[in-house]
Amino acid sequence: MPPTQPSTRDRILQAAIELFYAHGYAATGMAEILKKADANSGSFYFFFTSKEDLLMAVLDWYQASLGPVLLAPVFKKSQDPIRRIFLLLEKYRQNVLATEFAFGCPLGRLALEIDPDRRPVHDKIAANFTGWSRAVQELLEQARRQGQLPRRCDLRQLSRFVLTVMEGAVMQARSYQCIEPFDDCIAQLEAYFKELRTAAQDENGKKANVKKPNPSRRRK
Amino acid sequence: MPPTQPSTRDRILQAAIELFYAHGYAATGMAEILKKADANSGSFYFFFTSKEDLLMAVLDWYQASLGPVLLAPVFKKSQDPIRRIFLLLEKYRQNVLATEFAFGCPLGRLALEIDPDRRPVHDKIAANFTGWSRAVQELLEQARRQGQLPRRCDLRQLSRFVLTVMEGAVMQARSYQCIEPFDDCIAQLEAYFKELRTAAQDENGKKANVKKPNPSRRRK
Repeated sequence: MPPTQPSTRDRILQAAIELFYAHGYAATGMAEILKKADANSGSFYFFFTSKEDLLMAVLDWYQASLGPVLLAPVFKKSQDPIRRIFLLLEKYRQNVLATEFAFGCPLGRLALEIDPDRRPVHDKIAANFTGWSRAVQELLEQARRQGQLPRRCDLRQLSRFVLTVMEGAVMQARSYQCIEPFDDCIAQLEAYFKELRTAAQDENGKKANVKKPNPSRRRK
Repeated sequence: MPPTQPSTRDRILQAAIELFYAHGYAATGMAEILKKADANSGSFYFFFTSKEDLLMAVLDWYQASLGPVLLAPVFKKSQDPIRRIFLLLEKYRQNVLATEFAFGCPLGRLALEIDPDRRPVHDKIAANFTGWSRAVQELLEQARRQGQLPRRCDLRQLSRFVLTVMEGAVMQARSYQCIEPFDDCIAQLEAYFKELRTAAQDENGKKANVKKPNPSRRRK
């Protein structure tokens, strides 16, 4: 059987994903999308009511792709939860390098580009941020069960913090047009995780002391 | 003497600063700038060669204002270097709230909006980032001299990290349209500084032990 051809809707969607990523939403014209998708405006309006409607579909696609397209290939490389988080950040580093520092995260760019009045669009961007952060939070919870993170650490906060660091790091790499600011920020996040691991070890040590009090002390 | 009237150039510059901040660079038209500045296109082209030339002047203005406009009022509130950093972040929190989550940092927005091919513009954005980070680095160096940060911490990296956290936090607040993601990220940065302070205290304790060895140990 011959390979399945992508449908017209899929071609329009993929063209939009690539063009919004490369040039932003406002700078991408309808004519450009139709040309890239090899589609005409009649078929566009059969599937989408407007360019913003197409953007909503793009954001749904990102949300649906998070697990299979972004996370699964990264997670294959390691079983360790903290390592998986840094492999995910490494993936963004590759994006920054592949686009010659122009981009790294399509969602971050849309978050700052799209007018704040466009609430349905921002709700979908926020939902994408939430999906990403929750995936990181699950890894953090796993790491804590393994004794790699202290009990006092708020893991929902920390998952958002990881997203924040990635977005801010991508932004600086873009303006400096070099990877150093990105690497600096990831190095600091690693340093933070190292401090947290030490704090967790201290906690575990104290816990062990409570469970098995020092016999010499008991004798006093 | 009557108060000095702002010059035509200053009026155009201030109009551009406000409009680029509120609507972005691409979405701000020349007519809008001239109307807000109460200037005509003849006087515009007397001072600026193009809209991008005006953007360059806006970025120079941000660079020149960093000390007197942004940092000085914040630094008046405290002498403690770490407290000053968090007061600076608090200032961005106020910006986010004042713009109803639409913005917080004009530079971050331009960093992701302006086409990456516009190198002279990005060089000026990067110079603004560098100015900001260096001011934070000076505070970090002061804090280390006071024993608040460990010797092993790379303060240049950490200063970039603080910028990154602010930018990523502003971005998330914009899409979620609430301050919670911003507050979460700042809370995690505070937690990191707390771990660093503990590490510095451990280092200082060890140093004190080296200087004044335990007499009971010496006797062994």
